[in-house]
Amino acid sequence: MITRKGCAVPWFDLPEPELVRYRTATEEPEGLDDWWRARLDEARAAAAPPALEPHLPEVYGPLGVWDVEFSGALGDRVKGWYLRPPGSGDEPLPTVVTYIGYGGGRGLPTEHALLPAAGYAVFVMDTRGQGGRWTPGATADSAPAGPSHPGFMTRGITAPETYYVTRLMTDAALAVEVAAGLPGVDAARLAVSGGSQGGGLALAAAALGGDRVKVCHADVPFLCDFQRAITLTGSDPYAEIASFLAHNVHLVPAALDTLRYVDAALLARRITARSLLSVGLMDEVCPPSTVYAAYNEITAPKEIAVLPFTGHVVPQLHAETKLRHLREHL
Amino acid sequence: MITRKGCAVPWFDLPEPELVRYRTATEEPEGLDDWWRARLDEARAAAAPPALEPHLPEVYGPLGVWDVEFSGALGDRVKGWYLRPPGSGDEPLPTVVTYIGYGGGRGLPTEHALLPAAGYAVFVMDTRGQGGRWTPGATADSAPAGPSHPGFMTRGITAPETYYVTRLMTDAALAVEVAAGLPGVDAARLAVSGGSQGGGLALAAAALGGDRVKVCHADVPFLCDFQRAITLTGSDPYAEIASFLAHNVHLVPAALDTLRYVDAALLARRITARSLLSVGLMDEVCPPSTVYAAYNEITAPKEIAVLPFTGHVVPQLHAETKLRHLREHL
Amino acid sequence: MITRKGCAVPWFDLPEPELVRYRTATEEPEGLDDWWRARLDEARAAAAPPALEPHLPEVYGPLGVWDVEFSGALGDRVKGWYLRPPGSGDEPLPTVVTYIGYGGGRGLPTEHALLPAAGYAVFVMDTRGQGGRWTPGATADSAPAGPSHPGFMTRGITAPETYYVTRLMTDAALAVEVAAGLPGVDAARLAVSGGSQGGGLALAAAALGGDRVKVCHADVPFLCDFQRAITLTGSDPYAEIASFLAHNVHLVPAALDTLRYVDAALLARRITARSLLSVGLMDEVCPPSTVYAAYNEITAPKEIAVLPFTGHVVPQLHAETKLRHLREHL
Amino acid sequence: MITRKGCAVPWFDLPEPELVRYRTATEEPEGLDDWWRARLDEARAAAAPPALEPHLPEVYGPLGVWDVEFSGALGDRVKGWYLRPPGSGDEPLPTVVTYIGYGGGRGLPTEHALLPAAGYAVFVMDTRGQGGRWTPGATADSAPAGPSHPGFMTRGITAPETYYVTRLMTDAALAVEVAAGLPGVDAARLAVSGGSQGGGLALAAAALGGDRVKVCHADVPFLCDFQRAITLTGSDPYAEIASFLAHNVHLVPAALDTLRYVDAALLARRITARSLLSVGLMDEVCPPSTVYAAYNEITAPKEIAVLPFTGHVVPQLHAETKLRHLREHL
Amino acid sequence: MITRKGCAVPWFDLPEPELVRYRTATEEPEGLDDWWRARLDEARAAAAPPALEPHLPEVYGPLGVWDVEFSGALGDRVKGWYLRPPGSGDEPLPTVVTYIGYGGGRGLPTEHALLPAAGYAVFVMDTRGQGGRWTPGATADSAPAGPSHPGFMTRGITAPETYYVTRLMTDAALAVEVAAGLPGVDAARLAVSGGSQGGGLALAAAALGGDRVKVCHADVPFLCDFQRAITLTGSDPYAEIASFLAHNVHLVPAALDTLRYVDAALLARRITARSLLSVGLMDEVCPPSTVYAAYNEITAPKEIAVLPFTGHVVPQLHAETKLRHLREHL
Amino acid sequence: MITRKGCAVPWFDLPEPELVRYRTATEEPEGLDDWWRARLDEARAAAAPPALEPHLPEVYGPLGVWDVEFSGALGDRVKGWYLRPPGSGDEPLPTVVTYIGYGGGRGLPTEHALLPAAGYAVFVMDTRGQGGRWTPGATADSAPAGPSHPGFMTRGITAPETYYVTRLMTDAALAVEVAAGLPGVDAARLAVSGGSQGGGLALAAAALGGDRVKVCHADVPFLCDFQRAITLTGSDPYAEIASFLAHNVHLVPAALDTLRYVDAALLARRITARSLLSVGLMDEVCPPSTVYAAYNEITAPKEIAVLPFTGHVVPQLHAETKLRHLREHL
Repeated sequence: MITRKGCAVPWFDLPEPELVRYRTATEEPEGLDDWWRARLDEARAAAAPPALEPHLPEVYGPLGVWDVEFSGALGDRVKGWYLRPPGSGDEPLPTVVTYIGYGGGRGLPTEHALLPAAGYAVFVMDTRGQGGRWTPGATADSAPAGPSHPGFMTRGITAPETYYVTRLMTDAALAVEVAAGLPGVDAARLAVSGGSQGGGLALAAAALGGDRVKVCHADVPFLCDFQRAITLTGSDPYAEIASFLAHNVHLVPAALDTLRYVDAALLARRITARSLLSVGLMDEVCPPSTVYAAYNEITAPKEIAVLPFTGHVVPQLHAETKLRHLREHL
Repeated sequence: MITRKGCAVPWFDLPEPELVRYRTATEEPEGLDDWWRARLDEARAAAAPPALEPHLPEVYGPLGVWDVEFSGALGDRVKGWYLRPPGSGDEPLPTVVTYIGYGGGRGLPTEHALLPAAGYAVFVMDTRGQGGRWTPGATADSAPAGPSHPGFMTRGITAPETYYVTRLMTDAALAVEVAAGLPGVDAARLAVSGGSQGGGLALAAAALGGDRVKVCHADVPFLCDFQRAITLTGSDPYAEIASFLAHNVHLVPAALDTLRYVDAALLARRITARSLLSVGLMDEVCPPSTVYAAYNEITAPKEIAVLPFTGHVVPQLHAETKLRHLREHL
Repeated sequence: MITRKGCAVPWFDLPEPELVRYRTATEEPEGLDDWWRARLDEARAAAAPPALEPHLPEVYGPLGVWDVEFSGALGDRVKGWYLRPPGSGDEPLPTVVTYIGYGGGRGLPTEHALLPAAGYAVFVMDTRGQGGRWTPGATADSAPAGPSHPGFMTRGITAPETYYVTRLMTDAALAVEVAAGLPGVDAARLAVSGGSQGGGLALAAAALGGDRVKVCHADVPFLCDFQRAITLTGSDPYAEIASFLAHNVHLVPAALDTLRYVDAALLARRITARSLLSVGLMDEVCPPSTVYAAYNEITAPKEIAVLPFTGHVVPQLHAETKLRHLREHL
Repeated sequence: MITRKGCAVPWFDLPEPELVRYRTATEEPEGLDDWWRARLDEARAAAAPPALEPHLPEVYGPLGVWDVEFSGALGDRVKGWYLRPPGSGDEPLPTVVTYIGYGGGRGLPTEHALLPAAGYAVFVMDTRGQGGRWTPGATADSAPAGPSHPGFMTRGITAPETYYVTRLMTDAALAVEVAAGLPGVDAARLAVSGGSQGGGLALAAAALGGDRVKVCHADVPFLCDFQRAITLTGSDPYAEIASFLAHNVHLVPAALDTLRYVDAALLARRITARSLLSVGLMDEVCPPSTVYAAYNEITAPKEIAVLPFTGHVVPQLHAETKLRHLREHL
Repeated sequence: MITRKGCAVPWFDLPEPELVRYRTATEEPEGLDDWWRARLDEARAAAAPPALEPHLPEVYGPLGVWDVEFSGALGDRVKGWYLRPPGSGDEPLPTVVTYIGYGGGRGLPTEHALLPAAGYAVFVMDTRGQGGRWTPGATADSAPAGPSHPGFMTRGITAPETYYVTRLMTDAALAVEVAAGLPGVDAARLAVSGGSQGGGLALAAAALGGDRVKVCHADVPFLCDFQRAITLTGSDPYAEIASFLAHNVHLVPAALDTLRYVDAALLARRITARSLLSVGLMDEVCPPSTVYAAYNEITAPKEIAVLPFTGHVVPQLHAETKLRHLREHL
Repeated sequence: MITRKGCAVPWFDLPEPELVRYRTATEEPEGLDDWWRARLDEARAAAAPPALEPHLPEVYGPLGVWDVEFSGALGDRVKGWYLRPPGSGDEPLPTVVTYIGYGGGRGLPTEHALLPAAGYAVFVMDTRGQGGRWTPGATADSAPAGPSHPGFMTRGITAPETYYVTRLMTDAALAVEVAAGLPGVDAARLAVSGGSQGGGLALAAAALGGDRVKVCHADVPFLCDFQRAITLTGSDPYAEIASFLAHNVHLVPAALDTLRYVDAALLARRITARSLLSVGLMDEVCPPSTVYAAYNEITAPKEIAVLPFTGHVVPQLHAETKLRHLREHL
């Protein structure tokens, strides 16, 4: 079928005055805290201690780099990188736990040098199963996968306990706990950070991590207000879910129910960390209202950088804003 | 001209609560019933008896297949297939008259075996002039064609009497009459069925066929609420009309008037058959409001399968729903 | 199915040294001249005299504009415009018969003012059935149309006698004869001209018109070396033929045979007019080898403007080249 | 990122009843008249007399063509064409100053023959720096260019005095003054005309030219209601601005301020010429509300051709409308 | 990055004379038969007996439909449909084992009625993990998945033993064994059949099934000559592999080695069934040379339907050809 | 014009064995060294001393960051960043001069922290006029611009002295000279580095910098073998040149001549630095043969990373390879 006319409007979402007061219409499942506590307890029960190995010191020279492995959901071993500033020895440092965007894995340490150069330790969490589209990954997802759409967003979507995103958020929450125990980490000065999927995971980790997380940076976060998002954008990865349900119409109710358990907009109510988000008013991947859906639930001190003509690619200028925010609040 | 930003919203049409009570704003032309009666009478006057020939019995074996030819609009000979269940002999059977989607012809009998396998006779109507894009056709459209846009939607659009869709709907109405007279057809148990263009034709045939049609199945029907449709979707085939009028601006009033005579949403008021429709809320070819425009005019017993994340491709699961509906109502 | 990688090479056709000596591999059907003579004779036999009517003199002022109607293939009345230079009275003038690109009709006289302003009379032939995509048309194609692909390239393609292009080329040949008889035309100074489809028709008209045509301008001509073209480009209108045959595989031999009768590359051998062609080496609509296929068959004095980085849109600079060529040779 | 679903709605802008009463929300900068007077005075101060040279008389024959050079903004020499009807000698004629669409230059005289053929003189202004995408240009833009997006819409956008569009509108205003002084021009019968960018320039030239301009033709004009336009369309050239600001977020306030000085919708309040505009309700390049934003500010006698199914390509029929309008009002 | 010019050539692969003698350049891994025997033995060792349940007899009426579950690779339970002709009771019938195209699952019985209507039993194998894009599936893939590209083609690709396609071909081979033992199946008259991925699986099942398979129908088969295919087409699913390796460059040698074990072109040497293939010379998904790579290895009696203007969608006419082929050879 | 069929072949360039021995067919202009010496001397003559200012020390903390301005071509002030490892004081360090990809400017220091974290100083050169598409820039291009295509590749292309790329390469050469004189730079240990446009500039700077440059890293370099590139890829930025020449056909010879002066493949013969390049065999932006065109001219010690399934985005793994290469050779 060929489309020839018509304009895709860049400000396709609500007008800005409505955005800033938009609240998600999705209802939180009853007992959500208990449900998540059970998930985390299961994972902790299956956990083995983290393992660290120095990574190519002859290449990275003064920059400290360790290849890490820790236990996430189902006890699966999740990979990560731990980087420390040149010459920082064992000194306890403020530390940022970092999550990766959709399709990518932890990549290489080369991508994560800014914070160590600026004096922070970084703990990068790999994304289970991902890493096949850009930055490489090294972590398997061990759960069996029923019929799913290409991508990760519909794996196990028929129940919250089997859903891929549940496992991923569990990994993210455990990554914070693991980071807190790493040598040279100042457990009282922990931040979480990420963009897109990484932003959604940062929100979830801050929500599930309670007071352990002091600062939360979430750029154009994904995984928020799913039920609205899948009707509002035809872009992947949200669109994977709609595509799956297009033909699996018998699974619509179960899938919509599952999404409520991992909706970062609902989880965001639990965040106590000082939060800095960003939103692109032309973001066709994570539509602005879905970002505000999360932002507007946060009751902790918070700020949002509104980027009126930006899509899903966060401008570099915001990296300096975040660095300044860390300097002031971590 | 290059488009770089902006999101095509999947639920681009009215919100669902407005869809379910949406009524077309197009006014029915005065004397529409008389006008159609004249069309059908002209066609009947020019008609010759249908001809049937067995088709490749050595290939199809127990499945009964006949190559059919009957007289449609202008007396043009229209092709079709008549299929009967294995071992059904001459037994009078409930029969489904089937219409084809846009661009396709009657195709091959291989595509139409489900109903015979399940115990129904089927009469498949070819689509005049079509059959060049996927399923082959075998029927010519004999009317001379003034300037038109590639495709069939603007042929003769300057007057309802010369419009291609008028001829096509006339064929569809006559196909029901012909089917009723075929050997082995139980004329008291006739259904019409089709998807997209086939769905629009099924609605028209049910409307024009009066009590002769007992069940009407129309999936994501085309040919409904034209005047709204051409402003709401940039996808063919509706967009052919807008593309044509983009440059032929002097023909806009005549074309819009013509469309009122063949609007299946207006014709639908005449349907007495028990109807089952389907609508995809993400259908960019036949927008949901245009489907509801037809559905909401039907006063006979009716149901609609609402497919919230589906586009223009009807999920297979709905085929089982339709089969059960036939079982219960034909 | 989604395509993500790979480069469409701009010089996708043969390397230039091979282009300049490329000859079509399609064999001319036996008796092609007789066959075309029969076509033209049939059309002449059905012809009525042309009719001319002044067109909006109060709008066009000094520019002479007549709305023309003449008899083409099947005796169908074909529309046209006849334009004459301001103040030229009845003076016999050199005259250019002009043909239109695919999808367009004769348009409005406003588009055809350059030659009259420069001192030439112009006779613009409308394109039967076309005119629905950009420039409006006003001529119907009266032949019945069997199953065809959207567009005009597959109408009646199963036999040369029923093929749309046969009728179109017949119109083009008769237009030259009609032009020669118009008041104020110097019949000894006739040119044909057009781009794309218009270029293919100019070649055909020059070939079928014998010594009557003195100059032939064909820009990036379509309708040449069909059998190669449909394997070499996926762009419409050539691609209509391949798309049609994709599913109508039983019609492949008949269609390929039909195309030989209207192949402007084969007809070009008959051209005696002084010819000026143009070719874009990046032309994805009318691939360069198919243009050379025609050019290399012409035995009359000829030139070709080779545009190394140009696609299917002829640069304006070439218009000045053509005007100079007319000045020198007509 | 791959987009798979969702429909780009052809009538993506306001519903027609709201369009016809839509007013821009952008506020005019204080002292706009003074500011523009300063711009024009600067340019006049730097101006040298225009130069005319006959262009290829052996090619154009009776049609009078002169290659012109005049001084525009910054004293830059701007090229142009001056065309006169065949046989018109030095007779003072009504004259149309013509501006070109985005990306194109003055092209060749071959493109501008309609009006001379119909009895009008034409003065075509080249577009500084443009001419690399279709019709060739011959005029340089001498201002240094800070970081900008590919294209011309963001050059110097950080201040109104350095903005490219300011220079372009200055050229357009001076072109009218220059035309008024050309030999054979009836300075009391001047019109301005253009489509898209040319339409925006025609509006600006009419506004800045005061009573000097008697008729203004602006088809689907660009450069109107910028602040709304860049949120409403993802198509170039408006989208260049949004793309630039996507990453240069620190420049958003300055850029938005700059745009107010060259907004043809704000300038339009000053037009005294009898005006004829056109608007395509499916125009994704210059959205209909932005055209109405200009139209609704004009207080002079005015008309607008509403093209309900047309995009950004104005139908040929409108050319005849404009010619008739000239005949009646110039 | 924006692509503006250049033509994607429809006959992009080798010229036809080279196609018909093309042989794959990929070398078969040593001990491939032993390796596959081990895979099948492992699966058989883990197998439980198949289970059959009647499916909605009140809906399907005379058509016999059973919902089947059997053990495939790793002992995973694989779903399927078993359909029998109306009124065929327990009579042993010739039976066709059918495999599904990429992204789809077994779908619904409604899609598989042609063969039962024509007198054959059908056993449809579900596709593990697939079913999320069009036809629904019901079978999980239990293996843990390391980093992979969205889709199924890179799951476990770092070793042949862990590769998804290995499991899928194992399922396909076991499906034949299971079908042979179903009640009412004439085990001496078994065929395998499928298109695209289903075609690749049919080839693999015929190769691995030895004399048990009498007829093999493989339309435009996928999974053939991988190493060439991924350099020749940018379309999914082959392109998933290249996309994965684009960033996971360290995995290139292992992945290329893995592909040799499941290359249906290499396996095809083992086929003893009478084979009927089809190839589209414009197939951009499964390029023609990769289909010939398989066809040219088959030493059993064989035919190939060459579709010169067809892409990846097999024309309906070929369905009749296959039915006749079954009639004659099964 | 709508394209429907045909496959863009991922390995669209020469087969690999031909790639590795491919030599450019473009001839070097006579006196190229003298010509470049004149360019550099002109620039040096117009130069003012560089200026350095500390940049946000309260944000970057231990990481040393200076905002730099130096004189490039025409004496224009070019911006840059100078970054030094935490705690490195004034210690002379090996230093990498870095160039940016097309469309981007120097961006923010946040993007350039890897090398300082690993113990190297970095000097990042801004790209004149660029910075409007992703990473922001801060440098103006002061030369007047004749008609050009949107983008930078055709500015001043009618003569080598006025060509934009000449100015850019001059900037790049002077950046090396400036870097050598910065405080804390070990002038005997200088490298140049960049990807795409940055890679082409690195090659040019290494060639023009003589023995001053010890290591050259050029990833998927642009600006190489222009004359072939513009016939081989339809992707920007090479395609800007072809698009410009499509309509400006009179400028083809001058433009092709200009390109010879700035062809990094021709300049590469002068490189004495130890070189590490990378090439993606599926790179549709900088086709592999154009990269080999440069690589095969280098006579210094050299290596090339061949990425068989990679397009224009260099995999992260290569960053580690480059870091190791620096460690070993700088």
